[in-house]
Amino acid sequence: MELTWTSDPAPLLTVRPGFSLAEVDTSSTPGISASKKTGAAILEENRAELDDLQERLWAESRFEGKRSVLLVLQAMDTAGKGGIVKHVIGGISPQGVQDYGFKKPTPEELSHDFLWRVRKRLPTPGMIGVFDRSHYEDVLVARVHSLVEPAVIEQRYELIREFEREVAASGTTIVKVMLHISQHEQKQRLLERLEREDKHWKFNPGDIDERDLWPQYMDAYQRALEETSTETAPWFVVPADRKWYARIAVQRILLDATRALRPQWPLADFDVDAEKARLLAS
Amino acid sequence: MELTWTSDPAPLLTVRPGFSLAEVDTSSTPGISASKKTGAAILEENRAELDDLQERLWAESRFEGKRSVLLVLQAMDTAGKGGIVKHVIGGISPQGVQDYGFKKPTPEELSHDFLWRVRKRLPTPGMIGVFDRSHYEDVLVARVHSLVEPAVIEQRYELIREFEREVAASGTTIVKVMLHISQHEQKQRLLERLEREDKHWKFNPGDIDERDLWPQYMDAYQRALEETSTETAPWFVVPADRKWYARIAVQRILLDATRALRPQWPLADFDVDAEKARLLAS
Repeated sequence: MELTWTSDPAPLLTVRPGFSLAEVDTSSTPGISASKKTGAAILEENRAELDDLQERLWAESRFEGKRSVLLVLQAMDTAGKGGIVKHVIGGISPQGVQDYGFKKPTPEELSHDFLWRVRKRLPTPGMIGVFDRSHYEDVLVARVHSLVEPAVIEQRYELIREFEREVAASGTTIVKVMLHISQHEQKQRLLERLEREDKHWKFNPGDIDERDLWPQYMDAYQRALEETSTETAPWFVVPADRKWYARIAVQRILLDATRALRPQWPLADFDVDAEKARLLAS
Repeated sequence: MELTWTSDPAPLLTVRPGFSLAEVDTSSTPGISASKKTGAAILEENRAELDDLQERLWAESRFEGKRSVLLVLQAMDTAGKGGIVKHVIGGISPQGVQDYGFKKPTPEELSHDFLWRVRKRLPTPGMIGVFDRSHYEDVLVARVHSLVEPAVIEQRYELIREFEREVAASGTTIVKVMLHISQHEQKQRLLERLEREDKHWKFNPGDIDERDLWPQYMDAYQRALEETSTETAPWFVVPADRKWYARIAVQRILLDATRALRPQWPLADFDVDAEKARLLAS
């Protein structure tokens, strides 16, 4: 089924020096020419492998491995973070997932360094963690709304690079994804929320005010992406106007990152035949 | 598809006065005559509804609802708790699930009341929580291994009833399930772990020592079930020699409990037409 990818999407989507967010076509499907239906089939076909890889990571962590994977999801509102969690991460057994949605910081959180609340939510060994929003809000919304001085934002890029280097060194593979939709696509999706009674609860009038700040957000993303896409913790910008594409692209990136760890089933630390004999006699 | 149930399994599996664990046939399939294949189809068919119900609960909790659901899973080793989490709970978006596995208590946990660590893991509003093992270990393993005085165990039944009454009153629907396998079935499953290299990590020589305490464990379960199956927090004993049955039975019990809450999509607290106009102008 992977043959339907004409090329590995990861390198096509990686943020490298010279990257320009403005030049990304949000409706494109780099690496594949397919339909919504094929996309759904690919998604389904690869669920089991991601689940298997996570279980191996977990098994390993019971003995000596201390590795984990962290998927950081950032996006403008309605871009589909929830769909990624449901359709991609949903293929992994709930026992292996640590999903956390970062909201507006509480007064307690604000009284600490901006990375304080993030450290507490890092995945534990053997797990696949998901950050639905993250410490990047502290250089995105914080920049757009001038919540802190510009110099503080500048300093945070460096602090984030150091933080992620440290997290990676401790055994966590970091995969950072920006789901990228167009401002027009967002309008359609907000309109759908207004037209469907089962979606009203997701709508907040403030969402429209934020839309007016689109260019400022794109500037903030551009800066954050170029400042913090590193070898150890690269950013992937995934065109997300087509939900099916965003899902299989994130699945593939996450699969590649987890496969690269080559997690192995631990060897028995007991005498298998002796235990069989004891069991049969029990 | 629900027509394949000849009768609702919940009442058939509920622990009521006079219940006898010893009389339960672990290979039976109360409420349905079906095959493994039909079981898998039923499981698949009902995934979406459970996910939808959880999303409604969550939506409600963003406004005024403070309700949640807690599935407590208890069982002898190999009975299939992990399979329930993967196949039944796995149908719900990871954003809506709080799964927690209770291990042997840490020194810090032991320095507190036995319910201390349990309170910290109760599901938050809008969520479906799963306890993989629970405070019941404190009247099961604690009783079998005489970790505390018998009088302490006796007192704990009452403390558990009070605790669960309090949790239910605060808006959490409690569903308690014992997956019930035979000692013979456990032998087969442990044997499989010994025969498959990808399962060795799950095996612990101590598992065989625990098998020798089977009758003591069954006594401890019998007492715990009869002491703590209440109107607000009933126990269901699910025959689990057939994995397909255990999964659809737990799914059905959980579905019924969540349906009974009738969670509704919240009404818009804004002027829908006015917001549409603002959006279209944005």
